[in-house]
Amino acid sequence: MSNGRVFVDITTSLDGFIAGPNDGPELGLGEGGERLHQWVYDLASWRAPHGLAGGKTDRDSEILDEAFRRTGAVVLGKRMYDNAGGWGDNPPFHVPVFVLTHEARDAEAKEGGTTFTFVTDGIESALQQARAAAGEKDVSIAGGANTIQQFLKAGLIDEMQIHIAPLLLGGGIRLFGDLGTGQIELKATGVIESPEVTHLRFRVAK
Amino acid sequence: MSNGRVFVDITTSLDGFIAGPNDGPELGLGEGGERLHQWVYDLASWRAPHGLAGGKTDRDSEILDEAFRRTGAVVLGKRMYDNAGGWGDNPPFHVPVFVLTHEARDAEAKEGGTTFTFVTDGIESALQQARAAAGEKDVSIAGGANTIQQFLKAGLIDEMQIHIAPLLLGGGIRLFGDLGTGQIELKATGVIESPEVTHLRFRVAK
Repeated sequence: MSNGRVFVDITTSLDGFIAGPNDGPELGLGEGGERLHQWVYDLASWRAPHGLAGGKTDRDSEILDEAFRRTGAVVLGKRMYDNAGGWGDNPPFHVPVFVLTHEARDAEAKEGGTTFTFVTDGIESALQQARAAAGEKDVSIAGGANTIQQFLKAGLIDEMQIHIAPLLLGGGIRLFGDLGTGQIELKATGVIESPEVTHLRFRVAK
Repeated sequence: MSNGRVFVDITTSLDGFIAGPNDGPELGLGEGGERLHQWVYDLASWRAPHGLAGGKTDRDSEILDEAFRRTGAVVLGKRMYDNAGGWGDNPPFHVPVFVLTHEARDAEAKEGGTTFTFVTDGIESALQQARAAAGEKDVSIAGGANTIQQFLKAGLIDEMQIHIAPLLLGGGIRLFGDLGTGQIELKATGVIESPEVTHLRFRVAK
């Protein structure tokens, strides 16, 4: 099973956007951005960590649940944290979360097992702390795009699961941007099709 | 079967590039760009229209062949034509090709049934001519990115088959760019997985 791997699990439009234009604290995922995640909101495995009962238990739900269960710790960027308003009193992570930021700030312990630790000394430090917190589980690099790109450029991502929502957003925040790294080889490790979304799995060649 | 549909059939990297950095007449598909098409060169259905015998006849080959057989005419941009040096004496299209350009130029009839007609009065005119030439077959909008984007913005694309090659190019020419259209809904109509490439099919919602 999983064992300290570092992974990205994220939904994009076919044109590669993870948020629409004008994302931020007011618009959240930007214009059209919520549409990207339409496939998750009815799933039991999305509803449970958000404190909601019921929901569908189909293959999409299993895939989301697998990602949730393998996650022992999360790394994300401060912009994502701010855009989500800190996810309220009971955030959906339920594991230690390490937030990349430039300003030192006290850690926060929320309900339901989520802790936020603010890391000011870079991605390698955040990953080291996340690995320690995750134990035998995996570390999720949750976003935003800039954070994921930093980890990719540093060669620190082992696996990616990209959920392609069937739409073009036409603008917004790109998952990959222009990495400027030259070619990075991947290995396609699985494709799962559902009416709502196409799940693509890749390993990053090392 | 097909009946005058307008489609795009193109290979991209996972980060959405159809050519690497510095594409042009010298480097062709740019740095790393040839890697995108690695999956086609050994296929019987790629080799035959290029005048080469033999090759693999697997599912990838069938998919390429299906796209070839449905194509009654092609529209492409002058930059693509120039980057390919006009494809020599016996181009791999073997159908009428309509080249979008700003400079009037005499039509060219090549060996093997390919004709190049240079269209100076815009995409709708090119499409009208291509439809007439295609008869009951479909029209392929072959590229480059700018041409495909023009057709998408004008709402003229019915279907897309995107072949995702398992790599990140990190830079180059994006298939979709920033369309600036707002949201365009698609319907995922099929996924076919192979070791070399993942084929995704979409219909454009009208």
